[in-house]
Amino acid sequence: MYDTIIIGGGPGGYRAAERLGQAKKKVLLIEGQQLGGTCLNVGCVPTKTLLNSAKQYIHAKEAGKFGVQTGEVSFDWAKIQQWKTSVVEKLRGGIASQMKRFGVELAQGLGEITAPPSGAKHGKVTVRFPDGKTEEYAAPAILVSTGSVPVTPPIPGAADNPKLLDSTGLLSIGEAPKRLAVIGGGVIGVEFAGLFSALGTEVTVIEMMEEIIPFMDKELAPLYRKALNSTTTHPPVVFRLGSKVERIEGGTVHYTTKEGGRESVASDAVLMAIGRRPVLDSWGAGAAGIGFTPKGVTVDDRMRTNVPGIWAAGDITGQSLLAHSAYRMGEVAVRDILGHPGGNRGQGDRWRSNAVPWAVYGLPEAAGIGITEQEAAARGIAICKHTLPMAYSGRFAAENGFAGVGAVKVIAGAENRGTGNRPILGIHAVGAYASEFIWGGAAIIEQELGIEDVKQLIFPHPTVGELIRDAVWEL
Amino acid sequence: MYDTIIIGGGPGGYRAAERLGQAKKKVLLIEGQQLGGTCLNVGCVPTKTLLNSAKQYIHAKEAGKFGVQTGEVSFDWAKIQQWKTSVVEKLRGGIASQMKRFGVELAQGLGEITAPPSGAKHGKVTVRFPDGKTEEYAAPAILVSTGSVPVTPPIPGAADNPKLLDSTGLLSIGEAPKRLAVIGGGVIGVEFAGLFSALGTEVTVIEMMEEIIPFMDKELAPLYRKALNSTTTHPPVVFRLGSKVERIEGGTVHYTTKEGGRESVASDAVLMAIGRRPVLDSWGAGAAGIGFTPKGVTVDDRMRTNVPGIWAAGDITGQSLLAHSAYRMGEVAVRDILGHPGGNRGQGDRWRSNAVPWAVYGLPEAAGIGITEQEAAARGIAICKHTLPMAYSGRFAAENGFAGVGAVKVIAGAENRGTGNRPILGIHAVGAYASEFIWGGAAIIEQELGIEDVKQLIFPHPTVGELIRDAVWEL
Repeated sequence: MYDTIIIGGGPGGYRAAERLGQAKKKVLLIEGQQLGGTCLNVGCVPTKTLLNSAKQYIHAKEAGKFGVQTGEVSFDWAKIQQWKTSVVEKLRGGIASQMKRFGVELAQGLGEITAPPSGAKHGKVTVRFPDGKTEEYAAPAILVSTGSVPVTPPIPGAADNPKLLDSTGLLSIGEAPKRLAVIGGGVIGVEFAGLFSALGTEVTVIEMMEEIIPFMDKELAPLYRKALNSTTTHPPVVFRLGSKVERIEGGTVHYTTKEGGRESVASDAVLMAIGRRPVLDSWGAGAAGIGFTPKGVTVDDRMRTNVPGIWAAGDITGQSLLAHSAYRMGEVAVRDILGHPGGNRGQGDRWRSNAVPWAVYGLPEAAGIGITEQEAAARGIAICKHTLPMAYSGRFAAENGFAGVGAVKVIAGAENRGTGNRPILGIHAVGAYASEFIWGGAAIIEQELGIEDVKQLIFPHPTVGELIRDAVWEL
Repeated sequence: MYDTIIIGGGPGGYRAAERLGQAKKKVLLIEGQQLGGTCLNVGCVPTKTLLNSAKQYIHAKEAGKFGVQTGEVSFDWAKIQQWKTSVVEKLRGGIASQMKRFGVELAQGLGEITAPPSGAKHGKVTVRFPDGKTEEYAAPAILVSTGSVPVTPPIPGAADNPKLLDSTGLLSIGEAPKRLAVIGGGVIGVEFAGLFSALGTEVTVIEMMEEIIPFMDKELAPLYRKALNSTTTHPPVVFRLGSKVERIEGGTVHYTTKEGGRESVASDAVLMAIGRRPVLDSWGAGAAGIGFTPKGVTVDDRMRTNVPGIWAAGDITGQSLLAHSAYRMGEVAVRDILGHPGGNRGQGDRWRSNAVPWAVYGLPEAAGIGITEQEAAARGIAICKHTLPMAYSGRFAAENGFAGVGAVKVIAGAENRGTGNRPILGIHAVGAYASEFIWGGAAIIEQELGIEDVKQLIFPHPTVGELIRDAVWEL
C-alpha cells in the first residue's frame, strides 16, 4: 500500500516523488520507458551536450580573434554522440539514486488508472509490465505526469518518410546532415537549427507564423535570428517565415510563401518540430472520468483534476511544456496532497504561470520571464520599456566584441504602485548567459518587485546580467 | 556654476555623474587620469579580456573530450594584449558618450577641495591641469571618489625591483612569464594565478593566511583551489598557505612556511597583490576637515562624510573595494544629494553592505552573497546549510563532465520567521556561470526572502543556477 502513486517518471513525476519522499511518504513511481522523461532522455539534456560540442567547435574556429591559434578545427559526430550518451546515462543513474534515497519504489511498466479514489476507498492503478504480466496497486492519491510526444501533422508525404525525423530521431542521427530543413521555428526547431548550422549544416527553417518562437518579444525575435547568423564561420540559417508546408517528398519540403509563391527546399534530413501533444490515451483518463481537452488534462492552480484524489503535473496539463514548469507543478501537487499549503504571502502554494522563465539554449542563448510588449498591448496594460544592446556590457564586449548581437529588454507597468515604484512585468534577453541570469527575474516578478527595488539591487560588475539593472535605470 | 562637483572618474564617480545628469543636474567630473578608473583601465575589464583569451585557449585544448579536434593550440600574447586594449578603449569611449549624453562636464586634471561648503556658501575645488595651470570651481555639493591604489609593503628587496609588479604592471607585461610568483591569495592574486596558469605559466601563490580569498566560505575555498587545478592541460597552481614573505631578490621570493621552515621560489615575474589602499592624499581631505582613517574616509549609510555638503563613494570609503559597490554608493550619495531618499520599504535609500555580491572571474568562476558559515559562527547566528556538488547540475555535467569540481552552498537561519520560512542568509558558489547567476541571490537577501519563497521560485532547467533551488529544498 502506498500513500501516492505517480504515473510517469519525467520531471513532474520524479520531482513529486522526491518531495513526497522527503515528507516520508510511501510512493510508487510508474514509468514504462526510462526515468527522466523527455527532458533527460530526448530533450533538454542531450541537446545541451550537443550544443556544448557545437559551441566548442565554433569557439575554437573563432579563437583567433582573441589571440588563440588552433590549426584546423573539425568534429567527430560519433564522439559527440558518445559524450551525449554518457552524460544522459549518468544523470539517469542520478535520478535512480534519488529515488532510492527517498525510498520511492519503481514499477517499470505502463500504468493505467482502473478505479479513481472514492471517499475512503483507495484508487487503483494497474501496471502492465513488458513481459505482459499485470499488477494492481492502490493508494489514496494518484498523480498523473505522462508528458507529451512530438506532433506529426497529416502533411502529404510525412507518413513513412525515412528522411522525416522528430526531435528524438534527429538527436540520434548517424551523421550531421549536409542540409537540414526544419519545419517549425519554435524553441526546438531553433535550437536544432543553431546546433547544426554551427557544425556547418545548411539549415532552412520554415515557419507558418510571421516570426520565430511565438512567446518571444517581437522586438527581440528578429534580433535572435540575426544573432544566429552573426558569425561568418558557418553558413547562415535561412528563415522562411509566414510559409506553409504543403507536402514533403523525401528530403524536399514544398511550401507556400507569405506572398503565395510555391517554393521548395531540398535537404538530407527534415526535422518536424511543430509542437508536442499531451499523452492522453493509455492511462485510463476516460474510465476514471478525468476532464481533459486535446490540449491536456484540466487542472486548477493546485494541480487537482476534476476527480478528487487525482492530480496532474507537467506537459500532460498542456499549460507550460517546460521541464521546470513540470517540477513546480509536481511540487504544488505534492503540497496539496500533503495538505499543508505553506507559502508566506497568505496565498498558499499555487501554480502561478506568470513567473515561469523560459530559455533557448542555442548559439547564442535567449531567455525571458513575464510579459512581452505585445502581450501588454493585447491585455491593455500601459507599460514603459527599455532595451539595451548586449555590447553595452563590458563583459559581453570582452568575450564577444562590440559587433556581438543581442539585447536586454525590461518592461514595467506605466503606473506607480508606490512612490515611483512601477512594477517589473517582463525581462527578456538575447545573448550570452541569458539562461543563467534570468532566474533573478523570476524572483523579481514572483515577489512583485518594482523598479525602485531593482535600482537598489547590486549586481556584480562586469556581468552581462547587470544590463537588467542598467535598463531599469532608464525606465 | 555646478550643482555637484565629483572628484574621481571611476565607477563611483561616473555612475554618480550619470544619475545626477538623469536628474538634470549640472555636474563637473574631475579626473586626472582616464575615465573609468581602476575597474575599466587596470582592473575588472582588462582582466576579463585576458581571462577570456585564456578560457578560449584551454577550451580549445580540451575540446577533444566533446568530440572537437583542433590542430596544435597556441596563443599570441601580443594579439591578446591588442584585444584587451581595443575593448578597454572602446568602453572608455562609451563612458565619455554617457557623460556627454547627460551634459556632464569633464575637467581632466587633479582636483583638490580648497574650501568645504559652508551654510549657503558653496564649496570650492581647484583643478590642477597637466600644463600646470589651475582653475577653481564651486558647487554646493562635492562627491569624492578618488579610489584606491595597490599597496607595496616595505618588504626587503621590494623597492626598485624590476621583476616586482603590481596588478597594473602585470596586465601590460610584454610576454607571459614562464614562472610567476604571486604574493597574496586574494581575488586579484587568484585571478592572475588562474589566468597565467591556464596559459602554461608555472604559478606559485604565497598567502600569509591559512586560506585563499578571506571572504570566501571556508568549505568552498579549498574547493576553489582544487578546481583551479582540475585540468591536466596546464601546470597546477602551487599554493603556499600560512606563509610569510621575508624578502625578494630579483625574481626570487623568500618566505617562512607555516611550519617555520625557510623556502624560496624563483620566478620571472613577481606579482604583489596583498591589497589596495584608498587615495587619501592629494585632494584636500585634511584641509577640508574630513574624517578618515588609514582604511578610508568615514561615511554614514547615506555616504555623507562628517563635513556637510561632502559625500564619498567607492574604494575611498574602504568599505567594499568592488566596482559594483562603488556604483551603488555613488547612487546612494546621489539620492541623498537630491534629497529624496526613495525606496519602497520605508527605509529610504541606504548603503547596505549585507547584500553585496562578489565574483572571482577566474577559471573556474566563484561568487557569493551574504554570510559564510564562519561569519555566522563568529556572530552567534544559528544556521542550517546545504552544499551540492556542481556535477548534480545536468547542464554543468553536459559542459564539464562529472569530474568537474565545484559546488553551491546555501546558508539559512535556523529559526523560522514565518511558518517554516527560515531566512536565506548566504549563497556561495564555485563553478561555471557563478558570476552571472549570483545576482538573483542579491534579490533574495536584499528582499529578506526565506526558504519557502525560494522553493516557490522557478529556475530554468537545465541550468547551473538551479542548484541554489535544489540546495534550498535540502534545508
